[in-house]
Amino acid sequence: MAELKNDCFLRALQGLPVPWTPVWMMRQAGRYLPEYRSSRTRAGSFLDLCKTPELACEVTLQPLERFPLDAAILFSDILTIPDALGLGLYFTEGEGPRFQQPLETEKDILDLPELQVERDLNYVLEAVRLIRSALAGKVPLIGFSGSPWTLACYMLQGGSSRDFRKIKTLMYQQPEVLELLLDKLSVAVSRYLNAQIAAGVQAVQIFDTWGGVLAHTEYQRFSLAFMHKVLAQLDRHHEGRKVPVILFSKGGGLWLEQMAMTGCDALGVDWTVHLGQARKQIAGRCALQGNLDPAVLYAEAPVIRQQVARVLAEYGAGSGHVFNLGHGIEQWVDPDRAKLMIDAVHELSIPYHQE
Amino acid sequence: MAELKNDCFLRALQGLPVPWTPVWMMRQAGRYLPEYRSSRTRAGSFLDLCKTPELACEVTLQPLERFPLDAAILFSDILTIPDALGLGLYFTEGEGPRFQQPLETEKDILDLPELQVERDLNYVLEAVRLIRSALAGKVPLIGFSGSPWTLACYMLQGGSSRDFRKIKTLMYQQPEVLELLLDKLSVAVSRYLNAQIAAGVQAVQIFDTWGGVLAHTEYQRFSLAFMHKVLAQLDRHHEGRKVPVILFSKGGGLWLEQMAMTGCDALGVDWTVHLGQARKQIAGRCALQGNLDPAVLYAEAPVIRQQVARVLAEYGAGSGHVFNLGHGIEQWVDPDRAKLMIDAVHELSIPYHQE
Repeated sequence: MAELKNDCFLRALQGLPVPWTPVWMMRQAGRYLPEYRSSRTRAGSFLDLCKTPELACEVTLQPLERFPLDAAILFSDILTIPDALGLGLYFTEGEGPRFQQPLETEKDILDLPELQVERDLNYVLEAVRLIRSALAGKVPLIGFSGSPWTLACYMLQGGSSRDFRKIKTLMYQQPEVLELLLDKLSVAVSRYLNAQIAAGVQAVQIFDTWGGVLAHTEYQRFSLAFMHKVLAQLDRHHEGRKVPVILFSKGGGLWLEQMAMTGCDALGVDWTVHLGQARKQIAGRCALQGNLDPAVLYAEAPVIRQQVARVLAEYGAGSGHVFNLGHGIEQWVDPDRAKLMIDAVHELSIPYHQE
Repeated sequence: MAELKNDCFLRALQGLPVPWTPVWMMRQAGRYLPEYRSSRTRAGSFLDLCKTPELACEVTLQPLERFPLDAAILFSDILTIPDALGLGLYFTEGEGPRFQQPLETEKDILDLPELQVERDLNYVLEAVRLIRSALAGKVPLIGFSGSPWTLACYMLQGGSSRDFRKIKTLMYQQPEVLELLLDKLSVAVSRYLNAQIAAGVQAVQIFDTWGGVLAHTEYQRFSLAFMHKVLAQLDRHHEGRKVPVILFSKGGGLWLEQMAMTGCDALGVDWTVHLGQARKQIAGRCALQGNLDPAVLYAEAPVIRQQVARVLAEYGAGSGHVFNLGHGIEQWVDPDRAKLMIDAVHELSIPYHQE
């Protein structure tokens, strides 16, 4: 493997000194880029794009050709695991992901097969290998998975939801059945992430998109506990380096201390959180990633710079911060505004890293 | 006016000793009740139900006939103000509220008329008078309004939203234009609430349903500041009693200290919050209202009791707690489960109020 030229992102995740605050964007390979839309048209559908390693590699690299990002993230979907388990993932315009065979009965959960990553998700691993080779050490590659709770939400609801009625009904009526599902998913997620690490990803992020819809006691029992289980089963060293793990529970700002106790390397936080207060709370236990409101990218240049400056100032001096949006970049954003943000992070963060 | 027989709710909001923890439910007059569905069918539409004082009175009282609730809440919609300002509120099945004339330009905002409550929203005031008379002092009546920020969200988006792109674009591009709108709305909201108080409501709640979608700095500037402005203009005494004000920013659990500094009497909190920690944070500045996950009402009796017990234990001994759900009761809930919850609150809270 080529030597890593820019390890700023990996160093920041471990709290090691860095010359500037590294930055990447959730969903940085996405619809806001015209070249992405063109690749997607050639692929036929979003799912074809995910399942064709050459195209997944192509779109992963697109934002890096435009912007001086400090990390690449594997282009894929968070629902590849349920799809591999036979639920039949598909997408409807404007409504997001759906499953042909959502989980409906306890028997469906009991009968769920074990994930065979190398067989069922080889297209992801192949994409990882292609991307690592194409990156040639430019920046590290991030792998990812949905959290067990978040996967279970989609698998039981059959798609997105506003009230999470099905999964919450199961949770409050038959918690042990839900735990059985979450346990199976924590095994699948750790196998999946370990296979991504073996194939070459250099850090991983667990997306707990729906952790924030839970009451605080249920968050700990049904989301955090199973992310903890995943963490315990991960191979966190590879190629002679640590493979840092980032936990991101959207809407989890009240629970950062408990999350930091899992032994993850960093917490992703959304824009409701004050980074300086979060930093105090976690008291050096791990790094922080975030947390600009993606809607700031609809603003003019001076506002974007000022908001970047605010986020950097809230975190304060020293390493342990990876700049990101608090959620994925939106499809309506002008790519030049994203560039403005990234350049501002690099420029304005330098004073925070001088001795 | 008839003497108030049960003032437990009003006393708890002021931290005065109470025999049990009072309880009411957001959206307690609603679709989960068959008698409500029947009134709505007779009314023709949801909006007709809101605009016909006799029917609004009828459905307000329905949950009180079934359950030993400690407060009634005026049956109305949070979007009566924008409707009165000419935006043309209507409802579509499954998609929630919409406006025929959403605000689209700066001129639309500048041209927004002043609210004439007695003329434009007399149907609400008439409903308040009818309900007060029908209640005959049984329990206090709560009035309410949407917060300026939440009203502005609907008025600019034209309905519900997932990304709040229009209002956030305005907020980051032309903050002073948005502030002008919020300022107008804070005048309208305070007039509306003062008129409700004059007509007989004995407490008011400001619903800031969408405060939680803001970054923490923007929450303070664009939501909290204007609720503060409303508070400053309210007539908080009537009929020789204090009229307590409850602020409820859904998803605002990280900002309770700032909210408590507005001088409100209570904060509504959702189920992501640990009531004991919240109580410590606000340090006696105001009361707390909440915060059971509404989905708990899909569970069996023992789970409902256990969850009620947990919420009561988290708050701990002493007054200053009004039990509620963390959001509106959902339409799929069996009314008997709501009764179970209410009875459990009364029974299990008594030990917390003994000297």
